[in-house]
Amino acid sequence: MVNSCRHCPECLRGAENYCENGNTQTYGSKDRDGSITQGGYSTFVVVDEDFVLSIPASVDLAEAGPLLCAGITTYSPLRDWSVAPGKKVAIAGLGGLRHLAVQFATKMGADVTVVTTSPEKEQDAHRFGAKDVLINKDGADWSRYQRAFDFILDTIPYQHDVDRFIPLLKRDATLCRVGVGKLTTPNHHGQMTTVLTRTALAGSNTGGIRETQDMLDFCAMQKIKPQITKIPMDGINDTWSKIIAKQARYRFVMDMGMKA
Amino acid sequence: MVNSCRHCPECLRGAENYCENGNTQTYGSKDRDGSITQGGYSTFVVVDEDFVLSIPASVDLAEAGPLLCAGITTYSPLRDWSVAPGKKVAIAGLGGLRHLAVQFATKMGADVTVVTTSPEKEQDAHRFGAKDVLINKDGADWSRYQRAFDFILDTIPYQHDVDRFIPLLKRDATLCRVGVGKLTTPNHHGQMTTVLTRTALAGSNTGGIRETQDMLDFCAMQKIKPQITKIPMDGINDTWSKIIAKQARYRFVMDMGMKA
Repeated sequence: MVNSCRHCPECLRGAENYCENGNTQTYGSKDRDGSITQGGYSTFVVVDEDFVLSIPASVDLAEAGPLLCAGITTYSPLRDWSVAPGKKVAIAGLGGLRHLAVQFATKMGADVTVVTTSPEKEQDAHRFGAKDVLINKDGADWSRYQRAFDFILDTIPYQHDVDRFIPLLKRDATLCRVGVGKLTTPNHHGQMTTVLTRTALAGSNTGGIRETQDMLDFCAMQKIKPQITKIPMDGINDTWSKIIAKQARYRFVMDMGMKA
Repeated sequence: MVNSCRHCPECLRGAENYCENGNTQTYGSKDRDGSITQGGYSTFVVVDEDFVLSIPASVDLAEAGPLLCAGITTYSPLRDWSVAPGKKVAIAGLGGLRHLAVQFATKMGADVTVVTTSPEKEQDAHRFGAKDVLINKDGADWSRYQRAFDFILDTIPYQHDVDRFIPLLKRDATLCRVGVGKLTTPNHHGQMTTVLTRTALAGSNTGGIRETQDMLDFCAMQKIKPQITKIPMDGINDTWSKIIAKQARYRFVMDMGMKA
């Protein structure tokens, strides 16, 4: 995000990501002056000072990359729904967004459970701070997690059955989705599940500039970093195949100066 | 509701309606002693004292009837989501539950808008306290309600497009469903709508004993009453046809002592 209207209630509250007049994305977006934004794949980029972030000295530049999208997208809802010591939090899935979410929630003091369909990610989940891992496969025992969680962050990026997760919420608790899969296909969700236990299904979309800076500073202080693999620009096609094959652990970062 | 387990966290918090071990409904429900509850269609009914409510002297008995289901079901979420002076609230539909919801929300001090598909109910909506009425028909202008409401109570008892209502919520606001139509058919809801504006889709189911008493006392104090038509027991089939034909204004009450 490189611009927004700056006068609507959302912008004035520091939530430029929810700008009522639409924010300007870093690439392929129409800017306020009518030009189309060209993205960050260049040596220099000119951005308004209000949309510049300070990368703490202790944060590696390559590692800062994923923080500015996967990081803030998971950090923002964890803060908004008051994840803190004493709270039980479930993170659905364990991928690019989620491996950061687990570290954030753990460092915020919560007791974190990872729900994943990939048994081979169990060790990683513990390494990132999760106390418990529920392998989401046929025959999994969900019963001991009924009404167990104060908050569930669901980052699964494809259509899935949220009704399976809603009964895991305590009363008045929320499941927040940040992963959005097929936009044109409606997601099925049985309305009865939220009614029976007074729970809520919410959504969240990245974060504002002030909270993005807060997230970066939190990462520096708590030594939170994404697990990345650097690739050169011309390695992109090969890398894309690995992502499709679910081999990303957990973010690829293009280094513009790296030679193949 | 005539019983519950009374020792789970929900019961201890006065939310017997969300009893983790299942509450006992007034009719056709298995009670703790194994017997099947027989309902209230009788001259006397024996109920545990913890599940008895006091009807304020100023509340007509026939009018108290609908309060104990339609009343508490709408009162409870309006209280839980802090409806109060300064809040803008929309009530979707105007029927048995909704005509009470409009009165409750108005007396709680909110600025109430009714969204209804029935233009002939507009006058009634104003009589119950609504400041504004949006007739939900093709060609209706929804644009001036974008991000307008702090809370939407949706009591529509059949499947409908909640994605039309979610953009009417302010950021961090909730749409709460209490009407549940076809249980076996999943309700469609595009996950993108809650993500884009950080809103939530929630559910709520009746209310606990303490808050039901609170609701009755509030009705007595604020002179809130349902609009009812009394019928004798043997008028039930004729009445049912009227309900199906959407002619209920707004609750039928069977008077066990009334002769046809």
